Amino acid sequence: MPEKRYTVRFEPDDVSIDVYREAENLLRVAMVAGVHVNASCGGAGTCGKCKVKILEGEFRTKPTAKLSDAETKQGYCLACQTEILGDLIVEVPVESRYEKGVLARQLNRVAPEHVLAPARLGAEFAALRSDPAVVKYFAALTPPSEDNNGSDMGRLGQFLKQEYGVEQVTTDFAVMRELSQVLRAGTWQVTATVVDDIRAGRRMTHVGPGDTRGRTYCLAIDIGTTTIHGSLLDVNSGEEVAHAGDYNSQISMGEDVISRIVHSQKAGGLEALQKRVVKTMNGVIAELLDKAEVAPGEVSHAVFAGNTTMTQLFLGLNPKYIREAPYVPTANFFPPFKLADLGLAVPPQVTGFVAPCVASYVGGDITAGVLATGIHLSPLLTLFMDVGTNGEIVIGNQDWMVSASASAGPAFEGGGVKFGMRATYGAIEQIRVNPENFEPMILTIGQTAPKGICGSGMIDVLAEFALAGVISQNGKINQDLAAVTNRVRAGETGWEYVLCWKDQTQLDQDLVICEPDIDNLIRTKGSIYAACSVLLKSVGLQFTDLERIILAGGFGHYIDVEKAMAIGLLPEVAPEIVTYGGNTSLTGSKLAALFRDKMEEMEAVATMITNIELSASHIFMDEYVAALFLPHTRMEEFPLQRERLKAMGAIH
Amino acid sequence: MPEKRYTVRFEPDDVSIDVYREAENLLRVAMVAGVHVNASCGGAGTCGKCKVKILEGEFRTKPTAKLSDAETKQGYCLACQTEILGDLIVEVPVESRYEKGVLARQLNRVAPEHVLAPARLGAEFAALRSDPAVVKYFAALTPPSEDNNGSDMGRLGQFLKQEYGVEQVTTDFAVMRELSQVLRAGTWQVTATVVDDIRAGRRMTHVGPGDTRGRTYCLAIDIGTTTIHGSLLDVNSGEEVAHAGDYNSQISMGEDVISRIVHSQKAGGLEALQKRVVKTMNGVIAELLDKAEVAPGEVSHAVFAGNTTMTQLFLGLNPKYIREAPYVPTANFFPPFKLADLGLAVPPQVTGFVAPCVASYVGGDITAGVLATGIHLSPLLTLFMDVGTNGEIVIGNQDWMVSASASAGPAFEGGGVKFGMRATYGAIEQIRVNPENFEPMILTIGQTAPKGICGSGMIDVLAEFALAGVISQNGKINQDLAAVTNRVRAGETGWEYVLCWKDQTQLDQDLVICEPDIDNLIRTKGSIYAACSVLLKSVGLQFTDLERIILAGGFGHYIDVEKAMAIGLLPEVAPEIVTYGGNTSLTGSKLAALFRDKMEEMEAVATMITNIELSASHIFMDEYVAALFLPHTRMEEFPLQRERLKAMGAIH
Repeated sequence: MPEKRYTVRFEPDDVSIDVYREAENLLRVAMVAGVHVNASCGGAGTCGKCKVKILEGEFRTKPTAKLSDAETKQGYCLACQTEILGDLIVEVPVESRYEKGVLARQLNRVAPEHVLAPARLGAEFAALRSDPAVVKYFAALTPPSEDNNGSDMGRLGQFLKQEYGVEQVTTDFAVMRELSQVLRAGTWQVTATVVDDIRAGRRMTHVGPGDTRGRTYCLAIDIGTTTIHGSLLDVNSGEEVAHAGDYNSQISMGEDVISRIVHSQKAGGLEALQKRVVKTMNGVIAELLDKAEVAPGEVSHAVFAGNTTMTQLFLGLNPKYIREAPYVPTANFFPPFKLADLGLAVPPQVTGFVAPCVASYVGGDITAGVLATGIHLSPLLTLFMDVGTNGEIVIGNQDWMVSASASAGPAFEGGGVKFGMRATYGAIEQIRVNPENFEPMILTIGQTAPKGICGSGMIDVLAEFALAGVISQNGKINQDLAAVTNRVRAGETGWEYVLCWKDQTQLDQDLVICEPDIDNLIRTKGSIYAACSVLLKSVGLQFTDLERIILAGGFGHYIDVEKAMAIGLLPEVAPEIVTYGGNTSLTGSKLAALFRDKMEEMEAVATMITNIELSASHIFMDEYVAALFLPHTRMEEFPLQRERLKAMGAIH
Repeated sequence: MPEKRYTVRFEPDDVSIDVYREAENLLRVAMVAGVHVNASCGGAGTCGKCKVKILEGEFRTKPTAKLSDAETKQGYCLACQTEILGDLIVEVPVESRYEKGVLARQLNRVAPEHVLAPARLGAEFAALRSDPAVVKYFAALTPPSEDNNGSDMGRLGQFLKQEYGVEQVTTDFAVMRELSQVLRAGTWQVTATVVDDIRAGRRMTHVGPGDTRGRTYCLAIDIGTTTIHGSLLDVNSGEEVAHAGDYNSQISMGEDVISRIVHSQKAGGLEALQKRVVKTMNGVIAELLDKAEVAPGEVSHAVFAGNTTMTQLFLGLNPKYIREAPYVPTANFFPPFKLADLGLAVPPQVTGFVAPCVASYVGGDITAGVLATGIHLSPLLTLFMDVGTNGEIVIGNQDWMVSASASAGPAFEGGGVKFGMRATYGAIEQIRVNPENFEPMILTIGQTAPKGICGSGMIDVLAEFALAGVISQNGKINQDLAAVTNRVRAGETGWEYVLCWKDQTQLDQDLVICEPDIDNLIRTKGSIYAACSVLLKSVGLQFTDLERIILAGGFGHYIDVEKAMAIGLLPEVAPEIVTYGGNTSLTGSKLAALFRDKMEEMEAVATMITNIELSASHIFMDEYVAALFLPHTRMEEFPLQRERLKAMGAIH
């Protein structure tokens, strides 16, 4: 946990919250504290609704035309434009407040430790440095003489053996081709790069003049169906020196893995898809190198992780049978390779390793995720959920693991939701709805004008709509509310709720949530819950047996665990056992890029997981249908939510 | 030994010889029997000088205008045009005979077992088949089902493990790329090719539909400076199914390794040389496949052996420092590779292994040669000599081996000798000189009109000229003979001996041996003998300690061991300890192509050999100068030759 800096108390409800970051945004803190402050521009400062009064304490706020000079002098400011610089007492104006009576309907405030940003693993990586995947060795060789005229290669090999105990190294031809000149150009002082490819053994991939040990980098790449994320790591420190991401340019050939597979079966389709993903990666890699001012030749090794289809497309393997029952991938384990051989724009020496897959719909991203979260090393019974385009689930511990994939659909990634989008700038990531006047409190990523809604925002939508009574348990919008608020209305495609009015968005229309959006979100969450349920049953366990839940994937920066429980995406468990792992696919790739034993562990993980095919399971279909309700048709599994709904009078 | 077929007795000298081949050539048999029959057209049938009379027995002879009908009726024929079909009694006409008195000067007749053709090793190979380098496994897989939907690769891997105990196989991406289609095209019945690359481990290099185990081939290629020899082997039988060879088209960029290295240092030179040798190999491989009616896809593996420079040029490694003191090659051991990556026109799955080298001038051809001749497995103290462009020497046994390279110069390969040529059609390979009238008896390879003289012919030239008194012990032509025979004359470049008159050659001039030729031959043989001598001394041994001498390389089809001793190329040892190994570089490559343990043995051999650099050795220079004499300045090392020369009156 980071160190506490300040405390903010919100009046008149006397709600206090600890703040951990210098200059934290006040609207964001109110959101986390569960204090409703009207806000409909996402934090961009354009709606002027989030007016609060600072009664005490140090802060910094941007000037705004939304407040009069008199108001400013009295201590009023826009919460979204205000940074916290000390302990604060803040008064929430009456227009943002609602009666305490409706608080019963409210969720408990989310403790900050359950609003989890991805763990920063650099320091932990550094501590792990024991068995690096790539090592540079400096060699100060004795020049050849009449009495000692063995081969250049032999000279270097013998030095590495004697000085560093490094033996049985296979040398790439490319290294041999340059060696005689490099040794002499470096006046017999050179640095040799040795990559410990699992299965292919130690390979000398590069020899360059001088001592370059201080500049050793590797790449970790998460090959998402929608987004490619890359990380550049300093092997010496174990720290990430740059991060970059971009949309997978395969998107134009299909939004999801199924449509990509369909495209791959067209003439030249597979090749085109392979080139596309490599093109995106090349852009990401160039950005990483540029950001960190690292030369391409200073990169030695790379680890890639993606779902099974993405992995096969990247490697140019035919994914055809992933899509056809009984869903057979070409391979789950892959030999080491050279990045340049796949068209990546890095020097020919850079070696690659691809995270092994488990099955057609449980890929290397999951293997990497398990590696990153250490499920395979822990005695705790853990549920791991990676919700992206599909929902992949792993349940197990150090002794056994089972996996399944729910064809969740891409709702939480923005697909099937009218204004759905990925968790990037302008995406609504947090929402509160005032249960009295139905006004929303909205925060966007980057606090820019909203242009859509991302995964965590969608969970908020379902939960807040249900708790404020905007929708019923089966997801239908309460049409009676049209009389109370103009935000509920009959739109072109049926009933809808206006999250943001057009003039406060980056769009040329109102940003709405419509009934089909809600339907899709319920189907997605239902599918994931049903998959977890079936998987647990398959090993004779139930949700109450879980000792840990780890969330990963495209939920967005903030996921509110209790809201995820409120909608029945997560089971109702003690919130403290739930953690958010962030992009665990990337984190696992980073680990494997840095450490040889982690590469091996990754393969062990893939071997250890038993996949269970849900698509043909009748039990799954029954569970799925039962889960198409907020939170669930079996309300006994959600006692807290049942209490809330009872308090609302929504159920009896 | 082959089975004896016939006996031929030559009259009037009552010399008998056993003949082992059906339809053997009569002139060739006379040559081997040490019976002089004038013959100056090499056996082409044009000079008409080799007239003999068949007194008894069955034979077949070609009609010739060189004999009258009367002569033919009396049983006369041209020996070179006559095939032996039964036991014969042959009378040598007076014009070919010489007095028995001069027989004392003659060498003992060479026993047939010392006129050795390369051993046929096919049968021995077949007996060795225990640990093949390449294996095809047939797999009849259970198709995937809902309950058993692991990956295609996993299915195949598991079958190989369960059925054949084959584990830890790395699979090439190329195989994975085709696998899903191949398995289904073959209705789950496929053949997997597994190559056991030493160092890189087992690799699955190909999977094809159906059962193709019966068609498994590999290649062995000897990369000579002058000639590329290839062999296609049936892995199932261990037999060679085709042999082919061609001139190394690098020749246009330099005759010997030094000039090739010089060329490699020009812009684009190395690349051009690499392409040239690959081009020649592609031709050889195409010929091999064509001859044996084997499809390129049926070839799985290849082993290459060449001297260090040829090896580096083939692999595209810079040979620059091989030529500069202290003579350092880039590498002596090479990782496995794909032939197609080097530009060879074979399917991408074909894997290659290159015989390891010992030093800059003791290459993979020698390592392969030692492997082929089994020196490293024998307790016998062996001298191995491979005389090509250089003379490489190995001395040792199963416990230790030392090597050296004599910069012999290419005299025995045809270089530095006016009419020198490789041992191909038209090359004079055997010569006798009548010590009374100085008329020659000449045989060419293919018995076509002569166009030059090859290695074994050159040894004959030195020995016969010395014994007939055509030259003195220091290699000078006896000018007094000009009065006796028009074959000895002052030519344009000094004194010379006419081996063939222009009209009986394929040339437009007389085919002569001149003094500079003799000088070069003496330097070459002297260099080789000196190298052997120094190498023996370096390990505290002498020639009399040798238990076996193995000759290899470009001497030509027939080498007369006793003549080689007579000129001081070989030490005077019991002739029965000398054997001719033929192209041992190719034989060793064949062994390694067939057997994994032989590949490993090859690397062990290269590690085991200690190379001794002669170029800077004063002892070598002294030995070399001492050897520039026929047979040697230390006549006590050649007692037999000393007796002969004494009998001739050449020494006292």
